Parts: sequence; C-alpha cells; structure tokens
Amino acid sequence: MDEFSFIRSIRPKDYKQQSLIKGIDDDAAVFRPIGEDVVTAVDTMVEGVHFSRQTMTPSDVGYRALAANISDLAAMGSTPAFYLVSLVVSESWSEAELHQLYEGMSELADEHGMDLIGGDTVSGSELSVSITVFGYVDKDKARYRSDAEEGDVVFVTGTLGDSRAGLACMQKSMNRTNEIDYLIGRHQRPSPRVAFAQALKNCKRVALNDVSDGIANETNEIAESSQVDLVIQANFVPTSEAIQAVFPQVVQEWSLSGGEDFELLGTVSKAEWSLVEEAASATGVAVTVIGEVKKMNDETPRVYIETEEGRTILRKSGYTHLKKEGE
Amino acid sequence: MDEFSFIRSIRPKDYKQQSLIKGIDDDAAVFRPIGEDVVTAVDTMVEGVHFSRQTMTPSDVGYRALAANISDLAAMGSTPAFYLVSLVVSESWSEAELHQLYEGMSELADEHGMDLIGGDTVSGSELSVSITVFGYVDKDKARYRSDAEEGDVVFVTGTLGDSRAGLACMQKSMNRTNEIDYLIGRHQRPSPRVAFAQALKNCKRVALNDVSDGIANETNEIAESSQVDLVIQANFVPTSEAIQAVFPQVVQEWSLSGGEDFELLGTVSKAEWSLVEEAASATGVAVTVIGEVKKMNDETPRVYIETEEGRTILRKSGYTHLKKEGE
Repeated sequence: MDEFSFIRSIRPKDYKQQSLIKGIDDDAAVFRPIGEDVVTAVDTMVEGVHFSRQTMTPSDVGYRALAANISDLAAMGSTPAFYLVSLVVSESWSEAELHQLYEGMSELADEHGMDLIGGDTVSGSELSVSITVFGYVDKDKARYRSDAEEGDVVFVTGTLGDSRAGLACMQKSMNRTNEIDYLIGRHQRPSPRVAFAQALKNCKRVALNDVSDGIANETNEIAESSQVDLVIQANFVPTSEAIQAVFPQVVQEWSLSGGEDFELLGTVSKAEWSLVEEAASATGVAVTVIGEVKKMNDETPRVYIETEEGRTILRKSGYTHLKKEGE
Repeated sequence: MDEFSFIRSIRPKDYKQQSLIKGIDDDAAVFRPIGEDVVTAVDTMVEGVHFSRQTMTPSDVGYRALAANISDLAAMGSTPAFYLVSLVVSESWSEAELHQLYEGMSELADEHGMDLIGGDTVSGSELSVSITVFGYVDKDKARYRSDAEEGDVVFVTGTLGDSRAGLACMQKSMNRTNEIDYLIGRHQRPSPRVAFAQALKNCKRVALNDVSDGIANETNEIAESSQVDLVIQANFVPTSEAIQAVFPQVVQEWSLSGGEDFELLGTVSKAEWSLVEEAASATGVAVTVIGEVKKMNDETPRVYIETEEGRTILRKSGYTHLKKEGE
C-alpha cells in the first residue's frame, strides 16, 4: 500500500469546524480557538491487546477507538472538535479494511461534528490505532476529577459492565438473543456522554471522570485527586436487565471493574443534584446516585463499598478485599 | 510493569508553559491560547521499521521521535509548546530503557521549552512511539507549502543526506573517525530548525516544508501544493564534507532522497531573500539557494533537476529518470 495515496484517499472533502484554518494538506494542522480553552488527549488501541478481529469488525475498531477518546473529552465537559489518527498497519489488514476502520471513525466523528485534521500511517507487525482528540471548553469550565468535596453525591450515567459482558458473549459464541445483541452492541459501539456532560454547564462544580477502566478504578482516581473518601453502595450500582439475565453470577464484579463502558462517573453537591437530573432528562441519559463523598478517615484517600456483608475497601483493581477497615 | 505507576514516574514535576491549565493529572490536558493559532501534528516511529536498537540507544529513539515532530512545527513557523506521548511497549524493553527513552525526549523538549502534558502506555509485540506536538503561531502567520510563487528562489538549510549516511556507517560497523561520528550524530540527534523558522517572521511570504523524506519528495510537495514547477540545480544541493569524504559514490542520491535530515526546504521571493540570509546568520544556520520556482509548463506541477547531463524530472521517489522532458 502506498502511504501517501492512502492518506489522500481518506482526506475529508470538506471540514465542519469553522475554527479550522488548515487541515490535512501540510506538515501540521492549524486551528484558531476564540476565547476558549483547548482540551486534548491521546489513546491507543492495539490488536490482540485491546481488541481482536474475532469480536470487532474493522469499522467497530475505528468507531470504538474514537469513542474512547471522545469519552475523555466528555469527561472534561468539553465539545469535540478535531482528531488526528496515527495508524500502525500490519500486512494482515487490506486497504479495504483500513478504509472500513476510517469509516467507523468517520461515522462517530460526524455525529459529533468533528474533523479529521491529520495523521500518520506507518507499517508494523501488529495494527495499532492511536487517536489524538481536541475539544473546546469555556474558560475555566473544564471538569476535573480533583473537584469532589465532602458531602457530594456520587453518580454514574447509564449502566455498568455491559461492555465486558458483550465481549464475553462473543468470546463464548453464545446464541444471539435480544439481550446478547444489546450487550455486544455496548461493547462494539459505546456512546460517549458528550451531550450530558455539556448539559451540566449550569452546575457550579462537578467532578467528572469517564469509565474506561471500571468504576473501581475511577472512584479511586477521584478520591486520590480530590483527597477525599468515597462510599459506594453496591446495590445502587446500575446494571442493565440484559447483563442481569445473561450473567447473574458476575454482574457485580463486572459492574465494578468491567471497564470500557465509557459512561461518566461524577460527584456534585446535594444542592446541585437536581441540575444533574435535569441534564440527564434533557439528553435522554440515565443517571443514578451510587454513593457519597466523605472526609478522609486518615491521611490516605480511600473508596469503600457497602454490601450486605458490610463495608469493605474497593481497590483500583476492582476486586473487593473482604477485610474489615484497618486490617 | 504497572502502567499507572510508570506514567506517574515520568510526570513532570513542574510545567514551563504559562498557557497550560491542566497537565497530566486528568482525563485530558487543558491549555489556553491567547490570540494565537494552534499548530498540531502527529508522527509515529516503529521499532524495526523506523529505527533499530543496533543503531539507536533508547535515549536517541526518544530524542529523534520528538525531533521529527518538532521539525513539523518548525516547518509551520510555529513555536513548540506541548507534547503527548503514546507508547506501545514490547516485553523486550525494560522499565529502565523506557525511562531513558523519555529522558531523550525530555532533553530535547527542555531545549525548546516544551511540556509533556499527557499520554498513554499500552502493551504490544513491538515498540512504537507516537508523539503529538502542539505549537503556537501568530494569527495567519503559519507557513504553508502552498505559498510558493513563480520567480521565488528555492532554499534549504544545513546539509542533506547526512542522516542516511550516518545510518549506513552504523549498519556497516565502520571504524569511527571524526567524519563518521559527525554523520552518526546527525542520524541519532537531528536538530529541528525552530529558531531559524521563527527568525523568518519578517518575511511577508515563505513556503516551508521540513525535509523528512528527502528533498526529492518535499520539492514535489511544494510544487503540487502551490501548482508551480521547481527547477533544482543538482550541484547547488549542499552536502557536508563528511558525507563527501565517506560516501563519494552515493552523495548525490542520498542528498536528494536520504530523508530524516529534518532541515527546512523553502521558497521566498528574490526581494525577501536577504531576510532569509539574515535569519540564517542570526540563528547560526547555513542556508543555500538550490533552485527557482517557475510557472507550470503544462497542467501538471513538476520538479526538474539540472545536472551536467541535462535537465530531468525529479520524482518523489528521489530517483532521477534520465529521460528528456515530454517523454
């Protein structure tokens, strides 16, 4: 494959973002923020590590790679604008499949009005997709995971564990049912919660984190960044009817540590909780209170989870260690 | 290796750029351009394709990967500010070697006052380094390859082919001499021409391109983007005494198509050529006129090279096809 002709073939015919000055045609892209802050993140997916072609079509790979990045922009409360794609291509991918991968990205990018403004295509022994995204946010309005405060409620959008469950359905080649189709769809084509995060703009303060590694990890990140404790009620953690029906034995584990749901985890003052409910309602997203922010018990920020068996520490790894506090 | 602890271990202790609002600690980084345009590009290097550990130390790999990206910022006339690093790590790299790789980047970043503001570290079967860079440029002052005009002189900084020659010295395990050390140094630690490009700010119009794939390629990119012809004088193309001494047989070929010299190729009006000479002098960079921009002969932009054997077409691939025009 000729690298130059491939890049040319995926170049957009026109751009949507008015702030773009120069797109794909030069050594670099140029854009002009007007009084806004710029938000940027990079995320990479490697074949055989983050996905396999047994469970994802080329188009799904592109869609989900961009979704993971857009989810980071959503977690900052920002509006997606641009993306750069760096692709390491292995010989086992045909040019047609690479086009499908770009089309998967392009489909999601169009939903969010994003422009592809550059990239790089190189050869390697395994396919990897590295995407850099750019968003805008009003000055000083970015949402940080360090903004949680004692007394906040902890909330999460959507349902958790579905992506992990969808992957299991495919790995086990389970017979397709409506529930299984739903779970597989959540794995292959997650929905970053951009509109919901933007609808939170009337909240004075929200701590936000996207759920890429499971809430066991993300709650701990908020606790560490904000220097607070979080107490999560296990039976409040929202799970879909589909996962409950198909995987009743592991629903709790996967809802805590399944990862890649790309929902949003947040904290907000009780006074502003109604604004979060309004944002959810206005954007058609479910939102559930799952716990509360507490002052640190000692000098170490911790996340606790309360189950019928009592209160235990929720580690980043997601496995609850059934020890009493202080052990 | 624990991905989280590694990222934490390479997090800068402080940031240099005043426009940075949020660095590595959240889902994404945030920065605030003040009345400037933002320039961004991504470039990826894969082990075994773009470099080998026989010819590059881990520190060199980091240094050169960032140099290639900074060179793109220089070619836009912009000032480097930030970078994101996405690393696919294979098992054959130790954590100490990864730190050396980051130190190589950090060394060059410090020279240019750049901050590392985020990244991603994932596992894979081969190491690849994908870097996204961000720079600032005054509004409407970015330098495009589409800005060449009939009558311009074509110039290039430094000397060409040295990086290719340095690679050959190592591949052939040649006995070290001063010349060979020089060539190897140009391969392992190229110098992106940021200061020179910035010193061109008094020029009303300059077309710029960085020399990553060899001037045979870059001159054609300018010709295509600007819809002009370029005529290059082969014996004007600047080469180092070192390459002339060590590789007299291939010096012309490598100076045209060697690639990875990360010099700048440009065109400027004859009236403004003295400003380019001043910029070169002020920044200690050699600059050489190598040709002229012409009106297109027909509807296809072309690059011609004049040698003692006559005028031939210079293709992107860098090999001159010894046919007369029109054949």
